[in-house]
Amino acid sequence: MIDVCLLGTGGMLPLPKRYLTSLLVRVEGQAVLIDCGEATQVSLHMTNFSPVDIGHILFTHYHGDHCSGLPGLLMTMANSGRTDPVHLWGVPGLEKMVKGLTVICEYLPFQLVFHEISAKEKTSFQAIGLDWTSCPVKHRVPCLAYSAYLPRGGRFDPARAKALDIPLPYWSRLQGGEVIEAEGRVYRPENVLGPERRGLRLSYATDCRPSAALVETVRDSDLLIAEGLYGDPAKQADAKSKGHMVYKEAAKLAKDAGVKELWLTHFSPAMMNPKEFLPETRAIFPETHAGFDRKTTTLRFSEDA
Amino acid sequence: MIDVCLLGTGGMLPLPKRYLTSLLVRVEGQAVLIDCGEATQVSLHMTNFSPVDIGHILFTHYHGDHCSGLPGLLMTMANSGRTDPVHLWGVPGLEKMVKGLTVICEYLPFQLVFHEISAKEKTSFQAIGLDWTSCPVKHRVPCLAYSAYLPRGGRFDPARAKALDIPLPYWSRLQGGEVIEAEGRVYRPENVLGPERRGLRLSYATDCRPSAALVETVRDSDLLIAEGLYGDPAKQADAKSKGHMVYKEAAKLAKDAGVKELWLTHFSPAMMNPKEFLPETRAIFPETHAGFDRKTTTLRFSEDA
Repeated sequence: MIDVCLLGTGGMLPLPKRYLTSLLVRVEGQAVLIDCGEATQVSLHMTNFSPVDIGHILFTHYHGDHCSGLPGLLMTMANSGRTDPVHLWGVPGLEKMVKGLTVICEYLPFQLVFHEISAKEKTSFQAIGLDWTSCPVKHRVPCLAYSAYLPRGGRFDPARAKALDIPLPYWSRLQGGEVIEAEGRVYRPENVLGPERRGLRLSYATDCRPSAALVETVRDSDLLIAEGLYGDPAKQADAKSKGHMVYKEAAKLAKDAGVKELWLTHFSPAMMNPKEFLPETRAIFPETHAGFDRKTTTLRFSEDA
Repeated sequence: MIDVCLLGTGGMLPLPKRYLTSLLVRVEGQAVLIDCGEATQVSLHMTNFSPVDIGHILFTHYHGDHCSGLPGLLMTMANSGRTDPVHLWGVPGLEKMVKGLTVICEYLPFQLVFHEISAKEKTSFQAIGLDWTSCPVKHRVPCLAYSAYLPRGGRFDPARAKALDIPLPYWSRLQGGEVIEAEGRVYRPENVLGPERRGLRLSYATDCRPSAALVETVRDSDLLIAEGLYGDPAKQADAKSKGHMVYKEAAKLAKDAGVKELWLTHFSPAMMNPKEFLPETRAIFPETHAGFDRKTTTLRFSEDA
């Protein structure tokens, strides 16, 4: 399962009740943070997630509202006792940005590991047990969307295990994919597991225009978190010129990609009530929800799969 | 008069209800900000002060909790329409710190003017009509306390003005210190004003140990805002080793300097209730108050002076 917490939902500047857009993703106690604007750590403090567990920080791009909270968060992670390395991911320019911001970090007791990802083509990498894909998107500066996939092994077949005379203590280890050698025999997972089942997909796309590549990247997501800088469809020209989406464009993206659920985020500070434009947005994609700070869910494998 | 707003009162890390220590000082619509940790702009947003009016930002030192909010604030000032220069003040290293942090500021429509102040001796400068003094203080890194003085001219003597046959329309201009030439005569303020009266003094000392130089700098302040990282006197050894003060030390500083009122700030995140240790602190200096985010006052010339 994947824990998801939308730490902030604001664009441009942090507001008292709407901090800057940032997403925490946790799998079995290890966490990835996507974007880290000013006050992200304040929102994190209000959750039951610990800053110590953050092993990876992914950036969509380097506009201030997506990275200004980095030095403060790193210092708080240091004060919280983290000593394991922290991996940083983003388009080229990452190291320059981080080294600029951390000029005020007197000492960090962990290594910063830089992973500069292509701003031109999709890239795959692994973090916290998830298979990540970055997808270059159209914004005013190089920018990435991210999609994470948690694979799911095949269903365990107890009848087959019995027929093969496999001792009971090995069943769960085989189910976990382990090859076991014991008592002169070799037990292999593929002998007792069915075909790989559908896993879980979580996608995050902010500060971007829709594109065919983005649709493919987020296809079949269980949850897509996407920006809706403006709710008002009249703002579409503005959104286009600034490299952003209005609600309806995010909804069409969700529909085209066949996702299960859409959370909107990165709201303009001028938009007082992000729910105002939901009805017409749901006419395009019914499972659209307005994000809010610390909106949280757990994505689980379906029982019947 | 001087408007004073303690935007935050936390040390080390911003908490949901206690942002990092920062002070806004405003005189006739122009503002100075002292220190700018992460989320300072969020607290500012909750006040009736505008980010556009901030013409000067003073730093005590460059530990992250005193400057991590700078890039976000500058971007918000830019988005709010400021185009006038912004003056930055602090010990040597200022420009390096600011240039590091502003790596994420794509474009600022105003000039940043750097004023590096001695970390070894007192310095005087002017900003927003106040006479400022910086005083090097003992901390783990070079650090400054600041004291601001608003001078007050002499009392206008109407009987003397009448006796000198000065036309009524010139009275207020003379009171304001203007020399007026009119109808072949010269009218001088010193002819109708008494001796200069006591002005107003506001002082700010955080992240420091007490010292004789600091006592002299903040002497006779109408309001001293000083750090009390710890309330518990048992923490004094900790405070000393880290270059901080416990409440009682701040109270003794206030008493020794003969200030009128003391506000404590820069509380340890571990201290849940900053008011807990006030009774024993007031035994040393009765006019001690625990700061809280957006504690606000206006210092006014006394009516009877």
